[in-house]
Amino acid sequence: VMGIVLNIRGFLDKAWSLAINEPKKVVHCFKVGLALSLVSVFYYMRPLYDGVGGNAMWAVMTVVVVFEYTVGSTLSKCVNRAIGTCLAGSLGIGVHWVASHAGDKFEPVILQASVFLLAAAATFSRFIPTIKARFDYGAMIFILTFSLVSVSGYRVDKLVELAHERISTIAIGTSICVFITMILCPVWAGTELHHLISNNLEKLADSLEAENFRVVGSKNVHEKDSSKRLQGYKCVLYSKAAEETMANFARWEPAHGKFSFRHPWKQYLKIGASMRSCAYCIETLHGGINSNSETPEFLKKPFNDACMRLGTSSSKVLKELSSMIKTMKNSTKLDILVDEMNSSVEGLQKALKTFPIHQHIPTPDPATAEVPSGTEEPSVTPTILLLMEIVQMATLTSLFVEIASRIEGIV
Amino acid sequence: VMGIVLNIRGFLDKAWSLAINEPKKVVHCFKVGLALSLVSVFYYMRPLYDGVGGNAMWAVMTVVVVFEYTVGSTLSKCVNRAIGTCLAGSLGIGVHWVASHAGDKFEPVILQASVFLLAAAATFSRFIPTIKARFDYGAMIFILTFSLVSVSGYRVDKLVELAHERISTIAIGTSICVFITMILCPVWAGTELHHLISNNLEKLADSLEAENFRVVGSKNVHEKDSSKRLQGYKCVLYSKAAEETMANFARWEPAHGKFSFRHPWKQYLKIGASMRSCAYCIETLHGGINSNSETPEFLKKPFNDACMRLGTSSSKVLKELSSMIKTMKNSTKLDILVDEMNSSVEGLQKALKTFPIHQHIPTPDPATAEVPSGTEEPSVTPTILLLMEIVQMATLTSLFVEIASRIEGIV
Repeated sequence: VMGIVLNIRGFLDKAWSLAINEPKKVVHCFKVGLALSLVSVFYYMRPLYDGVGGNAMWAVMTVVVVFEYTVGSTLSKCVNRAIGTCLAGSLGIGVHWVASHAGDKFEPVILQASVFLLAAAATFSRFIPTIKARFDYGAMIFILTFSLVSVSGYRVDKLVELAHERISTIAIGTSICVFITMILCPVWAGTELHHLISNNLEKLADSLEAENFRVVGSKNVHEKDSSKRLQGYKCVLYSKAAEETMANFARWEPAHGKFSFRHPWKQYLKIGASMRSCAYCIETLHGGINSNSETPEFLKKPFNDACMRLGTSSSKVLKELSSMIKTMKNSTKLDILVDEMNSSVEGLQKALKTFPIHQHIPTPDPATAEVPSGTEEPSVTPTILLLMEIVQMATLTSLFVEIASRIEGIV
Repeated sequence: VMGIVLNIRGFLDKAWSLAINEPKKVVHCFKVGLALSLVSVFYYMRPLYDGVGGNAMWAVMTVVVVFEYTVGSTLSKCVNRAIGTCLAGSLGIGVHWVASHAGDKFEPVILQASVFLLAAAATFSRFIPTIKARFDYGAMIFILTFSLVSVSGYRVDKLVELAHERISTIAIGTSICVFITMILCPVWAGTELHHLISNNLEKLADSLEAENFRVVGSKNVHEKDSSKRLQGYKCVLYSKAAEETMANFARWEPAHGKFSFRHPWKQYLKIGASMRSCAYCIETLHGGINSNSETPEFLKKPFNDACMRLGTSSSKVLKELSSMIKTMKNSTKLDILVDEMNSSVEGLQKALKTFPIHQHIPTPDPATAEVPSGTEEPSVTPTILLLMEIVQMATLTSLFVEIASRIEGIV
């Protein structure tokens, strides 16, 4: 019994911390409650009830199903539902008309066959990626409405009335949803995407910096803090799906805040992709360093400075990019930072060129006396690996910069 | 006009190739059609119609909403729907009873408040990750049913009847769904996950091999074929979400084929995770090689053999693992292959140890005369990078092997 109590307690704690960390989600919950209360008013006020008929149930259902966290997804579901219902309704009435003129014998056959074929076709269309991304819900509503209409009665005149009722109740439900999502503390998918990308850029910069510190081995950073920052890149690794759905929903949203209607949301996906390839590098680097971390001091020396410089300058570039995206302003500092980064890349390359032959071997100072023992030698490679990674990351970063400047042009 | 026609044509071509490549999905479409036709029979056969009442609509709706591609997801939706409906129905009736005893004045207030609060709470629960993964749909149905019940009438006796009707129609709908998904060409989420994992292992092995060939620079592989195989690891990178949902659904499935009811599906997720970290390595390697690919011959030489050996042996291990998972049998060959791989790792490490000092510098053969020109030197690093990557990958692979053998123990 105690175990269960503890379990429930842990669960409640988790829920509470979620509520504290993301007040927007709590607000969303109350928005849903409000929307449902508004809809149920239609039942309590008799005049309205008589107007809409017993089908007011559809309004409740629409609100429950359509109301989503972001404005974009709510809008897309509303549009999907409206289009799906209208299309299926008119098709269903058409099929009914044909069937009713075909005689008593063929009527059920025609209806059944049409349900079978159209349901199969619509289900198939849900597997096609382009449709799945945008009209998945619409296709489902299409199947639902069509089978309800084609099955629910035999006379067309009654059907038209039914269709009219359903459409009006759905209109009531969707308009309540749209009104509430857009007026009360709206959560725009576009804004969320924007924040996600700029936060991810910052996390990437942080973990790049922390990784750099760790590699170079300076100990004057707080351990806990750095390990937390180190993990930042993992968020970047796994955010692909979130970015895509949000960009998809953002397209449905009207102009809001600093975003116009046809904001180039696809550019965000591109930034996301280059961030991800950056994060892959960091992941590999991280793994490489974990596996053998004791590099002899004398080997690290020639690189440490160049490395540090490159790491910090590229993370600066990332941070500048992030703040550029946040404020949506072209920053003049960026060019300077990029130049700085490029020069440190060159410095590193120079260090690499001079290292294996001129510096390391021809000067057999006491420190290198250890080398022939053979146990320390392979640890050169993590440093070189690190360098290569950083060079690569720098290339990626400059790629970034290009993309970002392109975006800023469009914004 | 021509543009539109061409567009439609391209779309149809795509759909057709999808249908050809995945006949299972086409079969699924017909299954949906069949299920709907079966349900609509309830309308045409009058005796049944009278028994279930006008609420037969709910059966249609259940089929449309609940019928999913895999058995696991259909089952989970059915269970969710049943639990959500029952819970919300009984709660709704309880609230109604309380409200009806509270007097005419308070009745609507109590009902509205309960709808508001419960809807908000249920919506909030959908944000909690553990519930979202398993009971998202159930929470939605809970909100829907509760608001419908608490809103739809004032007398409890009529409500009980309504609840009875709804539950029986939902039972009809779900049983048709379950029957059809499980009897006609069932698509088990568990089997799909199993295939996905073993295919991904094979793809990983292929692209590791191809990458290896490309790095070492041997040209006797077909260009087109190898570039296609090279891209195999990308599937592995992006399959996280798919694996997780499938593992989630697989838990709902009863015993089928070679899988028992409590098959260790989580182990598949672990394999997936280590495959992904392997794929990150390949991705980094791929990027590193693309950026500077002309390594002078004399530098590559000492590593080429060791590299080749390691690459092929580790891809062999991966392939063996894949076939082991496919057949679900412990293979004795695996140990031999792992030993082989480990010995080639050692060989590579030896090559690394001997390389920078003993081999490369002290023998100033004619080939090294070029070095001081300084332009070729940094390209040592990609090879070393590659080696490190491969060593790392080998470590990962042995990790793999451990996990896999653990699984085989459980299977």
